[in-house]
Amino acid sequence: MEINRRNFLRSAAIGTVGMAAIPEILSASMPTIKKKQKGILSSLKTGAVILFQGDSITDAGRERMKQQSNLAGSFGAGYAFLAASRLLCENPEKDFSIFNRGISGNKVYQLAERWQRDCFDLNPAVLSILIGVNDFWHKLDGKYDGTVEKYEQDYKQLLTLTRKMLPEIKLVIGEPFAVPETSAVNEKWFPDFDGYRAVAKKLAEEFEAEFIPYQTIFNEAVLRAPAKYWTGDGVHPSMAGCALMAEAWLKAVK
Amino acid sequence: MEINRRNFLRSAAIGTVGMAAIPEILSASMPTIKKKQKGILSSLKTGAVILFQGDSITDAGRERMKQQSNLAGSFGAGYAFLAASRLLCENPEKDFSIFNRGISGNKVYQLAERWQRDCFDLNPAVLSILIGVNDFWHKLDGKYDGTVEKYEQDYKQLLTLTRKMLPEIKLVIGEPFAVPETSAVNEKWFPDFDGYRAVAKKLAEEFEAEFIPYQTIFNEAVLRAPAKYWTGDGVHPSMAGCALMAEAWLKAVK
Repeated sequence: MEINRRNFLRSAAIGTVGMAAIPEILSASMPTIKKKQKGILSSLKTGAVILFQGDSITDAGRERMKQQSNLAGSFGAGYAFLAASRLLCENPEKDFSIFNRGISGNKVYQLAERWQRDCFDLNPAVLSILIGVNDFWHKLDGKYDGTVEKYEQDYKQLLTLTRKMLPEIKLVIGEPFAVPETSAVNEKWFPDFDGYRAVAKKLAEEFEAEFIPYQTIFNEAVLRAPAKYWTGDGVHPSMAGCALMAEAWLKAVK
Repeated sequence: MEINRRNFLRSAAIGTVGMAAIPEILSASMPTIKKKQKGILSSLKTGAVILFQGDSITDAGRERMKQQSNLAGSFGAGYAFLAASRLLCENPEKDFSIFNRGISGNKVYQLAERWQRDCFDLNPAVLSILIGVNDFWHKLDGKYDGTVEKYEQDYKQLLTLTRKMLPEIKLVIGEPFAVPETSAVNEKWFPDFDGYRAVAKKLAEEFEAEFIPYQTIFNEAVLRAPAKYWTGDGVHPSMAGCALMAEAWLKAVK
């Protein structure tokens, strides 16, 4: 685990306050990522559909009645709203339709149950998925009996079906993350949780998805402010954490 | 009014699609603004309080029970959430406390009624106000009988009191805006509405506030996509419009 490394680096990093935090954090955590799909954004046609999928981190309190594209209420107040708003603002000529269909508490098998309605029916050109923390967390607190093997199997099945149904789709896979020294994430999470992160990374490579290393990004962020500044419970990002995720997402698709 | 100028420029601007929209729009609409307070952001102490105030555009569906600082739910999904999230992410060492206390439907006199609780009690180092569209709109639809003179008088009184109570406060005043060729804004709004914009600008100069020319910004934006792309009803910004406002706000305070 990164705890020792982080504490060591935090002491070493005291001199960095006042520097531009976002570019610094992202250049430290994202430059080594091999881009599978150069410039997803520039490959998109006018009117392309972009879909955010996941659990509560993506859901972010969105209303689920209308579920419209490009509508603030339908996005909630999280990283998806931040990233989508910027995409729409920066690319007015593209006339993108961007949807958020994350649902709180979802594990990967629950995405599969609603995949026709909440993915295929929208015919997305880009699909961004962030899923996995509940596959582990709900097991830890006795609400679920899935294993990391089931997570991998379910996730692989979902991606295989997605590639079959939408052969041209551009995939973005976010690394599940858990930040220690917060209200919900403690030493019980590790090293088991790292297995879920590894699965997401492995599947991103296998399915030629753009991978966003959120765990690495948060590990860098906690060198600049306490963990709770970025995420109170270690799972759900604060406003600062949401903005950091959105910047990483935008960097990944550009 | 800008309608004729805009239609003319829209035709002339067809060649601009695909360019980076945000910097282009902002450099066209904001560079002539004389900065009254060089680098508001860099002047702030650690732990400084930043307060967003206004009407529904600022409120953006926030929950009003907890009204906490730096909390997504307490911000709603609008320009204040976008700007504040970025500020918090980019300045982790500053440990800012950022509040949103905009309330839907508010006119300037209604800010005054709740100013002790929703401004002075928070002791802000920065106060950002966007108010005025309802002072005009509610008059137009018969729900209010205030005039542009009353708007000026009320606004000036509010700012005078604010300067008296908080002599060191940094002020940011947003230009009220109304975008034609949308569902709610039509020719009946002009030229009368322009008087409210002029008052906000005049008071910004008088009180040495940073002025954000949102009307000019939206006038530039509609050269790049139809008005409804930026704001469906001409008053409430879309996600793209919110992002544009947030970028302008950040540019103004940096």
